[in-house]
Amino acid sequence: MRAPQIANPASLIVELCQQFYAQGWVSGTGGGISIRQDGRVYLAPSGVQKERIAESDLYVLDEAGTILEHPQQPELRPSACQPLFYNAFRLRDAGAVIHSHALPAMLVTLLYGEAFECTQLEMIKGIEGHGYYDKLVVPIIENTAHECDLADSMAKAIADYPSSHAVLVRRHGVYIWGRDWVQAKTHAECYHYLFDAAVQMARLGVATAPARRSTDAGLTSAAASSATTAHGRV
Amino acid sequence: MRAPQIANPASLIVELCQQFYAQGWVSGTGGGISIRQDGRVYLAPSGVQKERIAESDLYVLDEAGTILEHPQQPELRPSACQPLFYNAFRLRDAGAVIHSHALPAMLVTLLYGEAFECTQLEMIKGIEGHGYYDKLVVPIIENTAHECDLADSMAKAIADYPSSHAVLVRRHGVYIWGRDWVQAKTHAECYHYLFDAAVQMARLGVATAPARRSTDAGLTSAAASSATTAHGRV
Amino acid sequence: MRAPQIANPASLIVELCQQFYAQGWVSGTGGGISIRQDGRVYLAPSGVQKERIAESDLYVLDEAGTILEHPQQPELRPSACQPLFYNAFRLRDAGAVIHSHALPAMLVTLLYGEAFECTQLEMIKGIEGHGYYDKLVVPIIENTAHECDLADSMAKAIADYPSSHAVLVRRHGVYIWGRDWVQAKTHAECYHYLFDAAVQMARLGVATAPARRSTDAGLTSAAASSATTAHGRV
Amino acid sequence: MRAPQIANPASLIVELCQQFYAQGWVSGTGGGISIRQDGRVYLAPSGVQKERIAESDLYVLDEAGTILEHPQQPELRPSACQPLFYNAFRLRDAGAVIHSHALPAMLVTLLYGEAFECTQLEMIKGIEGHGYYDKLVVPIIENTAHECDLADSMAKAIADYPSSHAVLVRRHGVYIWGRDWVQAKTHAECYHYLFDAAVQMARLGVATAPARRSTDAGLTSAAASSATTAHGRV
Repeated sequence: MRAPQIANPASLIVELCQQFYAQGWVSGTGGGISIRQDGRVYLAPSGVQKERIAESDLYVLDEAGTILEHPQQPELRPSACQPLFYNAFRLRDAGAVIHSHALPAMLVTLLYGEAFECTQLEMIKGIEGHGYYDKLVVPIIENTAHECDLADSMAKAIADYPSSHAVLVRRHGVYIWGRDWVQAKTHAECYHYLFDAAVQMARLGVATAPARRSTDAGLTSAAASSATTAHGRV
Repeated sequence: MRAPQIANPASLIVELCQQFYAQGWVSGTGGGISIRQDGRVYLAPSGVQKERIAESDLYVLDEAGTILEHPQQPELRPSACQPLFYNAFRLRDAGAVIHSHALPAMLVTLLYGEAFECTQLEMIKGIEGHGYYDKLVVPIIENTAHECDLADSMAKAIADYPSSHAVLVRRHGVYIWGRDWVQAKTHAECYHYLFDAAVQMARLGVATAPARRSTDAGLTSAAASSATTAHGRV
Repeated sequence: MRAPQIANPASLIVELCQQFYAQGWVSGTGGGISIRQDGRVYLAPSGVQKERIAESDLYVLDEAGTILEHPQQPELRPSACQPLFYNAFRLRDAGAVIHSHALPAMLVTLLYGEAFECTQLEMIKGIEGHGYYDKLVVPIIENTAHECDLADSMAKAIADYPSSHAVLVRRHGVYIWGRDWVQAKTHAECYHYLFDAAVQMARLGVATAPARRSTDAGLTSAAASSATTAHGRV
Repeated sequence: MRAPQIANPASLIVELCQQFYAQGWVSGTGGGISIRQDGRVYLAPSGVQKERIAESDLYVLDEAGTILEHPQQPELRPSACQPLFYNAFRLRDAGAVIHSHALPAMLVTLLYGEAFECTQLEMIKGIEGHGYYDKLVVPIIENTAHECDLADSMAKAIADYPSSHAVLVRRHGVYIWGRDWVQAKTHAECYHYLFDAAVQMARLGVATAPARRSTDAGLTSAAASSATTAHGRV
């Protein structure tokens, strides 16, 4: 199901940015959220304190990227993330995209190579199309000097990993989307949980994938038989 | 003693879900709380953002599990945790059950085998029926693809571990209950503290049970007899 | 200087308990604060949720420990910490005492033997009577089955360590005091910072005391010469 | 661009101190912020609880350091950080300076020698004058018994490291500034993120500078040439 129509997307973005800031996703003016509804895209300006955005600071664009409404402050520019957000809108019909610089999202890109992988963690079920026994895979693209230069490799990763609702950016953060803002936020919370879990499992020296067990149905033999670690360090 | 009658259980659930969300127990729509009072069970719907639940989103059921009151939104379904919550209501006469996905609760299930164990930590005294020198044991059941399939193994764990007020679920989280919401919440805070302590002790390389010391003024003879570490890694 | 007279100590305790709960000092009904003013001692009941205390839940006692005012709820009992709080009131003329179960306070008692020690950390200067180059020492007493049984060993530790404004309790937490509530809270924040720092330094494998340097004035030679670790593991 | 004129700098300081306290930057009365506007410098008193400052507690000084307005409480003294704040005002024309005792800021000074260094982390771009492939360098000066004695070595570090907008103080914390309060706060969030990242990378055993890879589509030739770890432990 889609979440109900949002009465005031700009007001919701203001509220969510405060929440994301408190969670460490959008500090230092980085990160943010864009919402698409009824052919209109709501977007924060570049380089502003996300927890202090006002509704009047937001841009409204059409789906082609043309600015329909400018913020009141004339010196602002649209977020450098715009082409990245539009990738998810166009290629996945997303209703909302969240960009996070959360530390665990950045740190997992140092522990994995081409893609982050994990399986058999309950929170995987929070990602659309994934069950508990599925392998969750999130592609990791290499960072670039300018955020806009990520657009092509992100688009390629989206094409190459059709089951993923997120793209990690090495030494940078992550883009996460969903069909509407509720799913995008749920996805973001689940992915962040899994990234954090993987970092902590690496610290504890436990593998992110459990050892193979002889009987998957009963799941009684908890003893590990072969626990090849899931992460090859970069 | 039982906590005083709750004037409005639905309102309390809304408030506690916000608190649990801030503590990292119920992110990504996972986890939650159910309260039983006067033969009525208050329950959140499945897959909703727990920190944004409204009173009108809650189900009211009878003790047989029949829905008495539906949320206003017709597309909602009762939480998949319902059979798990009812295990604690029926088998332990619980007044409230909390389900948490908190990271430390999940991580301890990777460090222990059949059961989590610890002793001689002050917070153990917060768990009904336990003193400082007692061994606190929490059974760990294996996770399943569908949450409802946990019901039987949880019921068996409740029967097998009559002193425990909680059941951990491997790679998933924990169910914790109490005679009323105050005790369930107190239990939940103490268990989470102990899980977190065990994870941090594993990182620091210290055992969760203290070694016996030859000269020890303060410690009585009830101290642990051997310093074998309590956790065999899975 | 002493902090100004508190208009309403009960109201301040309610406010501080909420703050301490948010900081992880008083979860699971453990921990708390007691304030002494004008011969009256304000104290929370035993086993209550500290972030939800109301002013009417508090006891008022005289300096001999006699109850002057009872909470409205008749089933409550005074906090089991009372004799411990009174130790600091009587032996140190404290104006307030904070008892915390914060995880770092508990964890440092697993890393040190008879006493926690550190030196050359700026936050040491926040503890009355200590400069940057002083060694901060906090005695660690062994925990007991019943909190009241800590009173004698705590009194002995207070006598044996006259420079300390705190006593750690192994596998339990810490008692911290000050001449008034402002100093007690400042001490508590500084001690907690130092405990947390010591835990993190242990994880990073760096010593809590810096290596000896040839010239202390210029402090230019940062290279360690002999960094015997400050903590003998228990 | 400069941030717009602040209507009430004292009120903003009160608000920011509460935010910084919640983030762990100014606990135990340590740390703080000073704002300079129109030739007037707003400064907190020494040794006060930063999350409880009122506007009437602040000093107003001129740019020569003469007190123009005293707080209402006569027993207060200006913050011991004053000469440090003035270093940034005078030598860098800063509009605001933040002093933080955040644990990661202190911890990185234990992992690095003369200066903290990192490169190829997205948050580096939040520091004025720095791109993703630049090496971010923050000088580390040695702590002294009295805060005011840091003034000369801080001034020297500012002269020696003209690209840095921050000076770390070993076993103490960090001073961070910007052309106005918005940039100072953005810088502070980015620096703290990078310090925290470096501490966590040290724990995970990954270098703060990436190794060169032979086949790397996304990374240009500016990538690091050798994977020698950036931190020599002190």
